[in-house]
Amino acid sequence: MSLKEGDYVLLLTSDGKSYLVEIKDHNFHTHKDYLNLKDLIDKNYGEIIYGKKGEKFYILKPAIYDFLMKIERITQIVYPKDIGYILLKLDIGPGKTVLECGGGSGALTSAFAYIVGEEGKVISYEKEPKFQEVAKKNLKKLGISHRVVFKNIEVLESFEEKEVDAVFLDLKTPWVLIKASWEALKGGHPLGILVPTANQVSQCLLEIEKNPFIDVEVVEILLRHYKTNPERLRPEDRMVAHTGYLIFAKKVFEK
Amino acid sequence: MSLKEGDYVLLLTSDGKSYLVEIKDHNFHTHKDYLNLKDLIDKNYGEIIYGKKGEKFYILKPAIYDFLMKIERITQIVYPKDIGYILLKLDIGPGKTVLECGGGSGALTSAFAYIVGEEGKVISYEKEPKFQEVAKKNLKKLGISHRVVFKNIEVLESFEEKEVDAVFLDLKTPWVLIKASWEALKGGHPLGILVPTANQVSQCLLEIEKNPFIDVEVVEILLRHYKTNPERLRPEDRMVAHTGYLIFAKKVFEK
Amino acid sequence: MSLKEGDYVLLLTSDGKSYLVEIKDHNFHTHKDYLNLKDLIDKNYGEIIYGKKGEKFYILKPAIYDFLMKIERITQIVYPKDIGYILLKLDIGPGKTVLECGGGSGALTSAFAYIVGEEGKVISYEKEPKFQEVAKKNLKKLGISHRVVFKNIEVLESFEEKEVDAVFLDLKTPWVLIKASWEALKGGHPLGILVPTANQVSQCLLEIEKNPFIDVEVVEILLRHYKTNPERLRPEDRMVAHTGYLIFAKKVFEK
Amino acid sequence: MSLKEGDYVLLLTSDGKSYLVEIKDHNFHTHKDYLNLKDLIDKNYGEIIYGKKGEKFYILKPAIYDFLMKIERITQIVYPKDIGYILLKLDIGPGKTVLECGGGSGALTSAFAYIVGEEGKVISYEKEPKFQEVAKKNLKKLGISHRVVFKNIEVLESFEEKEVDAVFLDLKTPWVLIKASWEALKGGHPLGILVPTANQVSQCLLEIEKNPFIDVEVVEILLRHYKTNPERLRPEDRMVAHTGYLIFAKKVFEK
Repeated sequence: MSLKEGDYVLLLTSDGKSYLVEIKDHNFHTHKDYLNLKDLIDKNYGEIIYGKKGEKFYILKPAIYDFLMKIERITQIVYPKDIGYILLKLDIGPGKTVLECGGGSGALTSAFAYIVGEEGKVISYEKEPKFQEVAKKNLKKLGISHRVVFKNIEVLESFEEKEVDAVFLDLKTPWVLIKASWEALKGGHPLGILVPTANQVSQCLLEIEKNPFIDVEVVEILLRHYKTNPERLRPEDRMVAHTGYLIFAKKVFEK
Repeated sequence: MSLKEGDYVLLLTSDGKSYLVEIKDHNFHTHKDYLNLKDLIDKNYGEIIYGKKGEKFYILKPAIYDFLMKIERITQIVYPKDIGYILLKLDIGPGKTVLECGGGSGALTSAFAYIVGEEGKVISYEKEPKFQEVAKKNLKKLGISHRVVFKNIEVLESFEEKEVDAVFLDLKTPWVLIKASWEALKGGHPLGILVPTANQVSQCLLEIEKNPFIDVEVVEILLRHYKTNPERLRPEDRMVAHTGYLIFAKKVFEK
Repeated sequence: MSLKEGDYVLLLTSDGKSYLVEIKDHNFHTHKDYLNLKDLIDKNYGEIIYGKKGEKFYILKPAIYDFLMKIERITQIVYPKDIGYILLKLDIGPGKTVLECGGGSGALTSAFAYIVGEEGKVISYEKEPKFQEVAKKNLKKLGISHRVVFKNIEVLESFEEKEVDAVFLDLKTPWVLIKASWEALKGGHPLGILVPTANQVSQCLLEIEKNPFIDVEVVEILLRHYKTNPERLRPEDRMVAHTGYLIFAKKVFEK
Repeated sequence: MSLKEGDYVLLLTSDGKSYLVEIKDHNFHTHKDYLNLKDLIDKNYGEIIYGKKGEKFYILKPAIYDFLMKIERITQIVYPKDIGYILLKLDIGPGKTVLECGGGSGALTSAFAYIVGEEGKVISYEKEPKFQEVAKKNLKKLGISHRVVFKNIEVLESFEEKEVDAVFLDLKTPWVLIKASWEALKGGHPLGILVPTANQVSQCLLEIEKNPFIDVEVVEILLRHYKTNPERLRPEDRMVAHTGYLIFAKKVFEK
């Protein structure tokens, strides 16, 4: 099971920087050293490869977390701290069909597609063609773009799907699609929304109240990194203070 | 696809309380009303069932999140805010083989088993027989206990497995099993640890430094719920201040 | 400088509970023991007094923090984590004149009166007579009620004061008094506001924008307690998730 | 009460930057404009002064908060979110005598000296001469350096003072001075400590346990800023994740 052309690896240098690279005939440069990525062929995850100037590069298996953090992005992306929770709330698992609207650069799309597996499916609406192009490229790196139905459509009134297992909205005015989300969902199944501002939360909640949704939850998640010196354990100096508010609800046929 | 005996549903009442119940011939009581759970047969998720005194019960599809929150517990459990992040860092997806030590009541085990799917496998070590009995029961509710190999063994030196995709440790002295985790892991693949105290983090970091692990990360995750009144949006009064610190690292063959 | 009748002491028991008591001829009961508070006369801060059944009571000097935490309250009070920051932002120090509207039970009033000293003054508006009665009692315990001008008035249009050093608003609709606050303040001096909901923050900001205020800041402060076992250092299980949002701005004559 | 030479003002520009300046014959430059600070004489707080190129500068009264944030620093300083809480826990008010060890650049010293007023006193130990020089300069800006007794001494065993109202330690190894702090304090009065790492918290707690201190508290305080757009209310993207842990305890004569 050695590495072969086309595989992705995470290269970690001794100063703690990491790089997600594809194995191919290409010179990869850091500020200190370089190597030809073809030399990774027949190496194994966990081994070291040395740069032309002697720098160590650890060859690591990129986890889905690493793909999400290294994703090519031209929009604000959804972060792992939020994605992990979204997966559990939306009940994403092998075989599920998830609809998302506002796919952006494809971070959340990638996580969905990774978890639903070969039997599952992700329908990803995104009105902006250039965002969706980036998302497609990102999904290809993971080798799972065939699990995603990309739709380059601005949804105004309703989705083309019915009876999906979960819906996620990540757009500026998600409240205009709450009715559409209801129509697309199976009974008793979950809707999720991400918005950056408190005002948007209020507008979503108002619209959710008007539709047959219950079990409404609004949360925000904070993640704090610690420095890893065991004799001087302490949080990092700075952290992300906000990514967005998460809203969840479940569809019922009547309230 | 109507409901049938043996299915699990989440019943939500109008006062916002929810209950995870199995459909069988059994009278289910809340403080206000009751119903026979057999009457749920042939109903559908998203519908309402009325109690004998007229109380509304919304019939919802329990998400994996709901199973985790309603799990029968006789130990401290791992919470969704942490589980979601663990899944992404440990690269859990369909087909993966995960080893955990300190399975406890089986919350994390359930999430792992849910995500690895039918092609994946979870090996769950737990020295305490009564904890593992509870974990087994919880996995059976989800209908996926066959994906888990339960081992009622106190691991002292090494695990019986090699070449697993990920290892997770949730026990009092995880540092004694860091070498064993290294031996069980595939090269370049991730280890995760949960500990409640800062002193334990320091001890784990010391041991991780001594072994060929790199890409070390220590984080803590805070989740804050908001009240869902759109005209008076504000966080809840109280929140969980701490569940545990999460430690992650990746195995290499040499440092 | 031994203790005398009328002094306040903080009694701390061995199980960590503390009580703010006045020295007078009165039997003070805990669930385990009791003592006559007159027996504290001629004792000193830092000493132990024994209950009639042998329980230890540590005699501590109540800090202003302790007065704030033990205050008699019939309204939501402002908490020390917020009060400390308010003091610094509003530039409260000896000799200052502060106007507050919505005095409530008098927690913030107490802190203001404590810090402005004998040369300073606090003007405290509160429309509800029974709230102001409680505030007066609380200030008397601290022995500094003479530093406060209590006004049991509902302010509709303007305050009776001009040229005050700082204004603080703690009421449901603070935006209606932002113009009045401007008129009461010295040029270049600070206004502070506390509101519990995000919607109120937005309404305040809208009104602040319409008036000659600049240097606007909105913050929230979170305080997390740790368990004090040095071998098992970790945060408490639960914490206060929210008290309120703090808004600050400074008056200018024109924008 | 117009401004005169030697006064300090906070100049705020239209792009939200602020500068703490002393009024004297000096050209003050921003990247956009400049003005001679002597032209501030006879102006008033709250007014506008125009730069030579027409830029607006708002003339604001610097609050103690502003002095703390604009302080000249050659060490890590204590931040307002922590200082405010320290003031309340240590019962700092007019007339109090506070001893601090590890004065650093003088941020906390400034706040203490500001609040104790003309009748109070701050004793500030700092072994590093160049740190203390900076602290002295900072206190002079506030016009209250006469309230501080600066001691350029490395304390090894005991402080020269007895019967002080409060002690605060801000140094690398505060545990070596916990006995000395006990000796310097009045009975029943508070000790405060700031340390950046969890390991230091544990070491302090161990030493506090060995000495007659009770009512022990360990906390950390997080402050999150919000963007001030009322239509798009949301936290800032990034925040300070950690300054330090605060430890408090009160002296008793025996445990």
